[in-house]
Amino acid sequence: MHHLHLLSSSFTIQNPRLCPNHSLSSLHSSSPLSFTSRTPLLLSTTRHFRKKRSLQCRQSDYFQQQNITRRQPPNDSSFGGALQPRVFVGHSIYKGKAALTVEPKAPEFTPLDSGAFKVSKEGFVLLQFAPAAGVRQYDWGRKQVFSLSVTEIGSLISLGARESCEFFHDPFKGRSEEGKVRKVLKVEPLPDGSGHFFNLSVQNKLLNMDENIYIPVTRAEFAVLISAFNFIVPYLLGWHAYANSIKPDDTSRVNNANPRSGDFEWSR
Amino acid sequence: MHHLHLLSSSFTIQNPRLCPNHSLSSLHSSSPLSFTSRTPLLLSTTRHFRKKRSLQCRQSDYFQQQNITRRQPPNDSSFGGALQPRVFVGHSIYKGKAALTVEPKAPEFTPLDSGAFKVSKEGFVLLQFAPAAGVRQYDWGRKQVFSLSVTEIGSLISLGARESCEFFHDPFKGRSEEGKVRKVLKVEPLPDGSGHFFNLSVQNKLLNMDENIYIPVTRAEFAVLISAFNFIVPYLLGWHAYANSIKPDDTSRVNNANPRSGDFEWSR
Amino acid sequence: MHHLHLLSSSFTIQNPRLCPNHSLSSLHSSSPLSFTSRTPLLLSTTRHFRKKRSLQCRQSDYFQQQNITRRQPPNDSSFGGALQPRVFVGHSIYKGKAALTVEPKAPEFTPLDSGAFKVSKEGFVLLQFAPAAGVRQYDWGRKQVFSLSVTEIGSLISLGARESCEFFHDPFKGRSEEGKVRKVLKVEPLPDGSGHFFNLSVQNKLLNMDENIYIPVTRAEFAVLISAFNFIVPYLLGWHAYANSIKPDDTSRVNNANPRSGDFEWSR
Amino acid sequence: MHHLHLLSSSFTIQNPRLCPNHSLSSLHSSSPLSFTSRTPLLLSTTRHFRKKRSLQCRQSDYFQQQNITRRQPPNDSSFGGALQPRVFVGHSIYKGKAALTVEPKAPEFTPLDSGAFKVSKEGFVLLQFAPAAGVRQYDWGRKQVFSLSVTEIGSLISLGARESCEFFHDPFKGRSEEGKVRKVLKVEPLPDGSGHFFNLSVQNKLLNMDENIYIPVTRAEFAVLISAFNFIVPYLLGWHAYANSIKPDDTSRVNNANPRSGDFEWSR
Repeated sequence: MHHLHLLSSSFTIQNPRLCPNHSLSSLHSSSPLSFTSRTPLLLSTTRHFRKKRSLQCRQSDYFQQQNITRRQPPNDSSFGGALQPRVFVGHSIYKGKAALTVEPKAPEFTPLDSGAFKVSKEGFVLLQFAPAAGVRQYDWGRKQVFSLSVTEIGSLISLGARESCEFFHDPFKGRSEEGKVRKVLKVEPLPDGSGHFFNLSVQNKLLNMDENIYIPVTRAEFAVLISAFNFIVPYLLGWHAYANSIKPDDTSRVNNANPRSGDFEWSR
Repeated sequence: MHHLHLLSSSFTIQNPRLCPNHSLSSLHSSSPLSFTSRTPLLLSTTRHFRKKRSLQCRQSDYFQQQNITRRQPPNDSSFGGALQPRVFVGHSIYKGKAALTVEPKAPEFTPLDSGAFKVSKEGFVLLQFAPAAGVRQYDWGRKQVFSLSVTEIGSLISLGARESCEFFHDPFKGRSEEGKVRKVLKVEPLPDGSGHFFNLSVQNKLLNMDENIYIPVTRAEFAVLISAFNFIVPYLLGWHAYANSIKPDDTSRVNNANPRSGDFEWSR
Repeated sequence: MHHLHLLSSSFTIQNPRLCPNHSLSSLHSSSPLSFTSRTPLLLSTTRHFRKKRSLQCRQSDYFQQQNITRRQPPNDSSFGGALQPRVFVGHSIYKGKAALTVEPKAPEFTPLDSGAFKVSKEGFVLLQFAPAAGVRQYDWGRKQVFSLSVTEIGSLISLGARESCEFFHDPFKGRSEEGKVRKVLKVEPLPDGSGHFFNLSVQNKLLNMDENIYIPVTRAEFAVLISAFNFIVPYLLGWHAYANSIKPDDTSRVNNANPRSGDFEWSR
Repeated sequence: MHHLHLLSSSFTIQNPRLCPNHSLSSLHSSSPLSFTSRTPLLLSTTRHFRKKRSLQCRQSDYFQQQNITRRQPPNDSSFGGALQPRVFVGHSIYKGKAALTVEPKAPEFTPLDSGAFKVSKEGFVLLQFAPAAGVRQYDWGRKQVFSLSVTEIGSLISLGARESCEFFHDPFKGRSEEGKVRKVLKVEPLPDGSGHFFNLSVQNKLLNMDENIYIPVTRAEFAVLISAFNFIVPYLLGWHAYANSIKPDDTSRVNNANPRSGDFEWSR
């Protein structure tokens, strides 16, 4: 059952988000991408899990881990089941009381009958917060994570130096456990304008746990995040895949381009 | 004849556009790219159309479709004739009353006698607006589309938080039906500065139809659009194809580069 | 001798430039890249020129051309000698009195003894101004060109909405004809802040010619130029070639990386 | 022993840095990436050094070099041991009293047992300052270097036109010679707001040397640096390698994507 919970959290980026300074709460409904067939996915998932990984990911096991490492976020390869992206990247900010690792996660593509592909799920950026466990040591076993959707990334990209932003996630949104776990990420300007606080609080009524990790991010560090986010957004949308397919010598494109473009603008 | 109309609409991005805040109406003439040989294009087009696709694109057929889907824009592969780009990408914003999908469309290249290629038509971004048909359901069969040219994208990229922008398109510009269909896209700041309204109105005297779809876009969502637009503009111009051809070990370039650069700056 | 003049103009981006709002005239010397061996380059150049192209490029021949085309800048393949980049790209702005085409030009690389390459000459952006010759017709035979160096592009990228900028080029700088031809590009804000004027004036005492072409560029059009410039600058510097060579599985890099990085920061 | 010093300097980007306008001195600890095994690295390094290169890099030898060149920074291939990146790039600013060359340096990747790779050390940007030795001549033998970490690049990217920034490096931080060499890079606005001064001062008590090189950088030149920095940051982080691995037809991704994404957001 824990395993099930774990998987259900894959839909957290479908949850409603609030960003007080930016939202149009009265105007927009929540904006999830929808998955039609969750159970089949779950089954096929289970099939692909290797025993060892599966155990590692079990909630009860996971919580008993106490990974205290010297300034090294845990290798994500211990975190993703049998799947092996070829390169693991991240960017870490280390401070006295906590560390923050920022990591892009790829969009998902689905093949169409035609042999082409479409983006079925946009990518996101995973934030991992680990509390300090000593001088330059961080306890990645106690980390808390937060997945920034593309729109939430847009909030951060457009955040002014004196502005704040807040996102709410409920990993169980739409499930029976809805409301049992509540995650809030606040990004608030430091009093002297020299940067922003990233504050992640997690209330877990299932575990009777209430945790709060915050880390100051300087203006310079924030600029690096924004630069990295601006770079990665088109990849999270899958637009790079379309862009890279644009080639001068694609004869099908060249020869037949005009009829196709003729379809646009005139839908009605 | 409907088919002919449909194809003629491929030249809509040649229409004059007005953006009140940005334009130099008295100074600039309309700025179409010109195609010299429309009839041949039309003929060759028709030849490439497969029967089935051709039918789908016919106006009368198209209007009878009523695609109501749960938060899924219609797969574009049903929209582009026999041509199959390998990846379909878009980015959708879902709100209570409407959904907006933003989708890049590739430039077109023409081969030269030399074996090289030139950009013959810049790419664009297709906006698709669908009205809501229920909770989290959108009627893509009633969608209205609007093609943003590169310059119109430039308007949006440079749009201030409190500024507005307006574009006019006439799909029949320069044809006998000129003025029969009129599309206006307005992008206006929300009263509280928290984002912009995208408002597409279409007046179609041929069908005695007058429709209006609007959707609020938060500052965060707008930031994502701007980030995606900034990414895609060089591809729409085809500059990526030139940029990617710049290679250190291109010996023709290395050995002969100086005479060529000698030509520049001294045309007269 | 005309041919010689033509080639000598390849060094125009080495000329001193002034941008009143940005320059540090009293502080900086002129900033040319230097070529050590001009004569050998000239010779090898001549060798590579095909007869036909060589004739086309001759000054006297060139001036007798009168290419009046409908909104189509002349195909550059008629302009570059025997060299054939695989893709010709540009971006054109068409107005009532003139047209402006903006076109990136690749940097040049030189092979080193080690088999590696270095950037020997940064790329640039060629501006081509053509006066109108009728409704939507432009006389590309009377065009004037101006090569924007990377730093001049930097001026435009950082130009405020109400700021102006000015560049001076002398194609014969450092030659006996120095001062005979003088080119000035002024970029000035339009009175109502809706864009900028691009004004190219060319004084040619050799031909007793004095010409001036100006074209208004809206804020939206300028935003497209800036977006394209920001994209292309790293390519003009050749940084893309280095960036693209950064690969995780480059074993020489992985295995030996630390000693190398040990060299940095400690030069003295 | 000099050789040893040279290698130890590879860890300078691990030193604490201060940027008065941006830092959170009271909040953040120093933020080095840590290497656990320096001695093994040193040994393997020495093994990979070719005799000739090793000699060139020796401190005593190096200081006796006096490379005075006409506006050409020394070819880095003489600076990096046996390693040969395929393309050497940089961007130079030449002024009356000094020249500044800016050069990206790749991140380092480490293979994992799984066959995947992770970024083990972020890249940086090497600044090389050379004093003038005559008209348009610079003494690269007397150059001083400074490695900008990704966060320091972030400081520069976010630096306002009227703001200043300051970085301190100690190449021997954490060694017995700590405090013997002190490097300070100041970036300060010019009085008239037309650009920034880059001022590198190096105090070397080991050599009883105290040197100061400064160079004015116009707003236009600074804009080019920022454009290049924004381009290169994702590469320095290694994010491009992840981004480029995102492909629609990566079947492992497509088929198994959902379980993996299920892990995120639900660590606890």
